[in-house]
Amino acid sequence: MNKTLLCFAATAIAFTPSFQATADDHAPPTLAEVADAALVSDTYAWDFVEGVTTEVGPRQAGTEAEERARIWAMDWLEKHGFANIANEPFEMETWVPGTTHSVEILEPFPQPFVIQPLGNSASTGPDGITAEVVEFSSMADLSAAEDGSLAGKIAYISHQMRPSMDGSHYGFAGPVRWFGPSIAASKGAIATVIKSVGTDNSRNPHTGGTSFPARTTPIPAGALSLPDAANLERMFDRAGDRTITMKLVLTPSLLGTTLSGNVVGEIVGSNPDLPPVLLACHLDSWWNAPGAFDDGAGCGIITAAALNVAKTGQPLRTIRVLLAGAEEVGLWGSKAYSEAHIDEPIAVGIESDFGADRIWRFESNFRGSNPDLHGRLADAVARFGVANSSIVASGGADLNIARDQKAAIIDLQQDGTRYFDLHHTPDDTLDKIDPVQLRQNVAVWTTVVGILANEERAIQSGDTIADVGPAIKAAR
Amino acid sequence: MNKTLLCFAATAIAFTPSFQATADDHAPPTLAEVADAALVSDTYAWDFVEGVTTEVGPRQAGTEAEERARIWAMDWLEKHGFANIANEPFEMETWVPGTTHSVEILEPFPQPFVIQPLGNSASTGPDGITAEVVEFSSMADLSAAEDGSLAGKIAYISHQMRPSMDGSHYGFAGPVRWFGPSIAASKGAIATVIKSVGTDNSRNPHTGGTSFPARTTPIPAGALSLPDAANLERMFDRAGDRTITMKLVLTPSLLGTTLSGNVVGEIVGSNPDLPPVLLACHLDSWWNAPGAFDDGAGCGIITAAALNVAKTGQPLRTIRVLLAGAEEVGLWGSKAYSEAHIDEPIAVGIESDFGADRIWRFESNFRGSNPDLHGRLADAVARFGVANSSIVASGGADLNIARDQKAAIIDLQQDGTRYFDLHHTPDDTLDKIDPVQLRQNVAVWTTVVGILANEERAIQSGDTIADVGPAIKAAR
Repeated sequence: MNKTLLCFAATAIAFTPSFQATADDHAPPTLAEVADAALVSDTYAWDFVEGVTTEVGPRQAGTEAEERARIWAMDWLEKHGFANIANEPFEMETWVPGTTHSVEILEPFPQPFVIQPLGNSASTGPDGITAEVVEFSSMADLSAAEDGSLAGKIAYISHQMRPSMDGSHYGFAGPVRWFGPSIAASKGAIATVIKSVGTDNSRNPHTGGTSFPARTTPIPAGALSLPDAANLERMFDRAGDRTITMKLVLTPSLLGTTLSGNVVGEIVGSNPDLPPVLLACHLDSWWNAPGAFDDGAGCGIITAAALNVAKTGQPLRTIRVLLAGAEEVGLWGSKAYSEAHIDEPIAVGIESDFGADRIWRFESNFRGSNPDLHGRLADAVARFGVANSSIVASGGADLNIARDQKAAIIDLQQDGTRYFDLHHTPDDTLDKIDPVQLRQNVAVWTTVVGILANEERAIQSGDTIADVGPAIKAAR
Repeated sequence: MNKTLLCFAATAIAFTPSFQATADDHAPPTLAEVADAALVSDTYAWDFVEGVTTEVGPRQAGTEAEERARIWAMDWLEKHGFANIANEPFEMETWVPGTTHSVEILEPFPQPFVIQPLGNSASTGPDGITAEVVEFSSMADLSAAEDGSLAGKIAYISHQMRPSMDGSHYGFAGPVRWFGPSIAASKGAIATVIKSVGTDNSRNPHTGGTSFPARTTPIPAGALSLPDAANLERMFDRAGDRTITMKLVLTPSLLGTTLSGNVVGEIVGSNPDLPPVLLACHLDSWWNAPGAFDDGAGCGIITAAALNVAKTGQPLRTIRVLLAGAEEVGLWGSKAYSEAHIDEPIAVGIESDFGADRIWRFESNFRGSNPDLHGRLADAVARFGVANSSIVASGGADLNIARDQKAAIIDLQQDGTRYFDLHHTPDDTLDKIDPVQLRQNVAVWTTVVGILANEERAIQSGDTIADVGPAIKAAR
């Protein structure tokens, strides 16, 4: 670190994070020292995620709860010395889940199941609907059903998702949720229930958005918990010729246009001519959980990394954190941020939005175009058990601006083996976070952000972005 | 096995289980052979528990669902060749949970939690109640509160339960549920919420009965899921001087007197003068789950053991299975069975009601009075990894008759390490059962029941029953 720069930072700029050079001329810690300390004793990330899950809780996009989250987050950023804190509001069309979510089999084996509506689900009305259920064991089977063959019926769609470290089985099973209800509707179905897109055996359904194209009228759509889905499938096995009749009550509604917002804050760099490093997460969660893994942890990790880097002295580039709004329900915040800031180049974008388990793989989209930087970053995180990779980074959901600007992108891939046990379920609570793995994230992020924020040369991208990446990640 | 007896069985008695001596004079398998086969390939137990969880589902005591369970079970027993199948009805006072179970913190950190009512909870009415919450970290703290000090308030009671192989932490933490609400009521509380008596971190509360003595008017009482209890405790840590305000809605009700029943069936023994061997489980479950661990598995294990023993030929003693009704809500079935049959001596009682994980310890109440039989049984199950023990067996909840008759009792203790992750929660579903461990239960039971049912000498008890046992087990 350049000592002159550092003194300038401490005296001339609104730059208050806790660990800066002091008058008695002690040298600030090195980046490696700060990262090592974070590995064993970082408290920023935990404090953020404990705080937002305890003091705010669930924060469905576009609602008053999400607004409380923004106020809470700005207060947290201010207390920790971030500069240029702002809420950047945007309008969105807001769906809310309603309060009644019930389902029961009436015949031939009467029993209640546990269900939650999918985002964008229509309402059954408070009295619900009762109809025959038709089983599809895969999207292929559903797609093969004849037009009109589901008229008056409820479609049940299953899948064969398994845990995967890289999260790739989300792309494998996700279409059941993303597109299943609209395909079923196009064949006449009056409602759709799916096997939760998840890998656990907890009695808690996985919600998440489903899409109805403009030409398709939304139908009620819900996710059964995995044990209930298994039970329904056993019923089909045991029912023989008997019809399985289901009563479904889901009461979501549309609030119309409401406000959401993106919260931003900065560790101001010493050279305003250099584009900033953008660290992203999302602040909203589904209504059914306080959003610890998704994505309180991510916001904790990125803010902790920025604060830890600041302990080494003022960085060359500004580090900007983007706590995006309304990610879950359609990337409203990511789109709004890109639209508002498209003319302000960023140096590089990185996002944390895949839980809190350890980072195991380093990816960039500049391995070919800037092999020196890619190599230095990969080498620096190797000691934390992070492998180099030739996969081209495509960025998280809230990095639309990086993709739109064709900027550099880094993906610090987290171990997703248990991510889809918790994803979008009521079980996404603080106790699921392993503090040791959370701190490994902070140590890796601190290392990467510290190098990037002090990189004087341009961090141009250039590698081809895999087309499949953004589409899958956008649906997270 | 005595071949003459066997032929008699096959020809002269209504004795149809599948594996009996045939005309071509093949010898039936030995008990050891049958137990070995059960260990690797028993299907009876799984078929029972899969069937009852799939085709019946939750079966709250005293309701129509429990009646369906009785019809289903009698049909299953008949299909599998049991004799003397009967439903022995009894009257009970029936509590049902109602449909609205919601709780939210209003101040200072608004967010909803997940709650379920405790058995015998009063109703808040559909509009709920709103009041300050007072935290007690233990029963001792609650007991120390001054009379009247909880007037108009909601008591929250915590505990420090940990997983325990022998289930002893249920006795440690259980009083929070069993007695906490009535103690809080006696100090003026208008409602009680407890940390679920459980050891998991799933977002599903543990219900279970609570007791209000005749002089205490029941108050609304519910269990928070463990993650929600932890969140509430963090709120107390963060609230400082601020009051925590809770809105609680629980709408259970009393149905008055309804019918429940005990289902019985027999493998008829060749010597009607010898008292039968009684194998017990309970057929009812709480409303919130299909009751796989508690106690569909137990009914599967005992019926499988009876059927496997029958494969070795007709036993000397009758093996009677008792699928008791209304256990969860106060041992109504156990009491009714004892009352009805108190004058019909049983030889020995054994119950399975602690999940489906492996049996690890053998206990009897005749180690001193009948050391030969105790030793033979312990030796016979050792090869399945079951240790002998000097603990005096006190029997499961449905063995009131054995205790009332001061009969012999055996406890085949199951590994309870994860039992209280699932106990009385919506998560008590079929997928939680490990088929390998379930079959170990069947192999051990088959061995023990086979020896007992062919024991010609009296199986007198005589050891002292530990006083604490029945009290704890009765509350299971």
